[in-house]
Amino acid sequence: MEFINIIDYIGTFAFAISGIRLAAAKNFDWFGAYVVGFVTAVGGGTLRDLMLDTTPFWMEHLSYLIVTGLALIFVLIFRKYVVRLDNTFFIFDAVGIALFTVVGVEKSLEAGFPVWVNVIMGTITGAAGGMFRDIFINEVPLIFRKDIYAMACLLGGIVYHLCLWLGLDTVLTQLIAAVSVFLIRVLAVHFHISLPALKSIDQTADRGDDGSVNPS
Amino acid sequence: MEFINIIDYIGTFAFAISGIRLAAAKNFDWFGAYVVGFVTAVGGGTLRDLMLDTTPFWMEHLSYLIVTGLALIFVLIFRKYVVRLDNTFFIFDAVGIALFTVVGVEKSLEAGFPVWVNVIMGTITGAAGGMFRDIFINEVPLIFRKDIYAMACLLGGIVYHLCLWLGLDTVLTQLIAAVSVFLIRVLAVHFHISLPALKSIDQTADRGDDGSVNPS
Amino acid sequence: MEFINIIDYIGTFAFAISGIRLAAAKNFDWFGAYVVGFVTAVGGGTLRDLMLDTTPFWMEHLSYLIVTGLALIFVLIFRKYVVRLDNTFFIFDAVGIALFTVVGVEKSLEAGFPVWVNVIMGTITGAAGGMFRDIFINEVPLIFRKDIYAMACLLGGIVYHLCLWLGLDTVLTQLIAAVSVFLIRVLAVHFHISLPALKSIDQTADRGDDGSVNPS
Repeated sequence: MEFINIIDYIGTFAFAISGIRLAAAKNFDWFGAYVVGFVTAVGGGTLRDLMLDTTPFWMEHLSYLIVTGLALIFVLIFRKYVVRLDNTFFIFDAVGIALFTVVGVEKSLEAGFPVWVNVIMGTITGAAGGMFRDIFINEVPLIFRKDIYAMACLLGGIVYHLCLWLGLDTVLTQLIAAVSVFLIRVLAVHFHISLPALKSIDQTADRGDDGSVNPS
Repeated sequence: MEFINIIDYIGTFAFAISGIRLAAAKNFDWFGAYVVGFVTAVGGGTLRDLMLDTTPFWMEHLSYLIVTGLALIFVLIFRKYVVRLDNTFFIFDAVGIALFTVVGVEKSLEAGFPVWVNVIMGTITGAAGGMFRDIFINEVPLIFRKDIYAMACLLGGIVYHLCLWLGLDTVLTQLIAAVSVFLIRVLAVHFHISLPALKSIDQTADRGDDGSVNPS
Repeated sequence: MEFINIIDYIGTFAFAISGIRLAAAKNFDWFGAYVVGFVTAVGGGTLRDLMLDTTPFWMEHLSYLIVTGLALIFVLIFRKYVVRLDNTFFIFDAVGIALFTVVGVEKSLEAGFPVWVNVIMGTITGAAGGMFRDIFINEVPLIFRKDIYAMACLLGGIVYHLCLWLGLDTVLTQLIAAVSVFLIRVLAVHFHISLPALKSIDQTADRGDDGSVNPS
């Protein structure tokens, strides 16, 4: 088993835990919780693979189902301590989106797509699983309202291509891109950095004091 | 028209009715209700076919659109009696998931996938339509909170492969697997058997009296 | 740049604006609003392309991302005036669904599918983006409860095939079909024409005075 696989499993495990915990909060039965955990872990990569017209990655390795099963057992056994482990899971999750983003960028690159498609595929791989999770449990997707999340994936995809453009080798490029996603995510949460909300147009129509960004 | 087609149409009809009835309860117009009925009936198989990289099955036979139309007409005409027919529809629906599960397992098997992928494809074919229905009408998917539903499909897929492994012929395998799904579903509802909810971790963090299962 | 491209960009712009505005009302950050705008604009065509087994159209032209970006900038700059522009956007949106419907019908026709598949693909292209938007922002899809929307796309697809059957040339067929969708949509809103709701079966079980249509 290579190092990259271990990281991949850690990411899958962390994503599955996040899905299972939120499903538990909605009183899903444990089979439903398993499904939500699995979709959280593999949903982004599945959407990417459908768009790239390849077989969804998890259909070729049993490991993703097994890791999700381990995540469910972990939650069932250690449920009393899971809340205290929040910081640990947050780090796992940040490692997960970092690696998943790099995997997504590379799969798209290998399929011969242009830079901007690769960046989007990296972002979908890293962030869409969490979006499916929120749709499943009938919540407005959190990833668009809280912290820097999908944005970290997007920036990581851009960093990846900058490294390639600078002529760095593949391993170094992967490392720098993944570390970028991880750091952007962790620092954004630590320093409470978030993108400005796009305030409701109707609410702000007469105020104009909404502190919105003004890209140009 | 073969026997298998008749069963297929009964399953489609029952699924479409279930979608149309729930859409009606949300005040969808009849076109919207038709769409929800159609998605309920063909959504699972469509997701399966996208993952198996084949053309969605309903794009090759007009019959699924027609059967959904008949279901809509049936609801419009017999709406006063539809509630009383709950038990009838429940049986139709159970027949539907039984057959759809077998169809899904076989399509995946023919495409050359391993056992565990076939079981998942069977489950998606049988249960994902109801999930799409619930997302459409903006409810938390019921299938993860109520009774044994997706679980019956999963067990049916396993039974299918056990029969193959025992060397039974195809027709007998199909029959035993479908009957298994049907019986598991019907008996679970009759005896109020359901999987334990995965209680909210945060609620139970200090209690520990949640009666959870402890798989190992 | 050809005329058809200009129309395509206008439709994309209008769809993106509609997604961004609804995301803003839900306090999405501006990145999330961009994503919702993009999904609203390209979601229908993406689902169509996945079903037709071709690469999603927006992965082959950067323009859809750029137009969505322009829509976001437009909303940010002119937010105070956007509400007053409701009628303008409504016309843009109606132009958008008209063109998208024709594009969808033609892509399916070129792929060799029968008439009824083409009509469905046209409807999905024109109307599914708005459905994804509503699922994203966690609302019951509006398009099934308000006005004639998906129905206009469906009728436009039928008009397209009627024109072909009458032997009209391609350009005239495109024009008549698109104008049909546009007019059906605009006239339905202007004259408050909508399909009857399929009243809740349980609510109306004892009344029978629900004014429902009775197709037969």
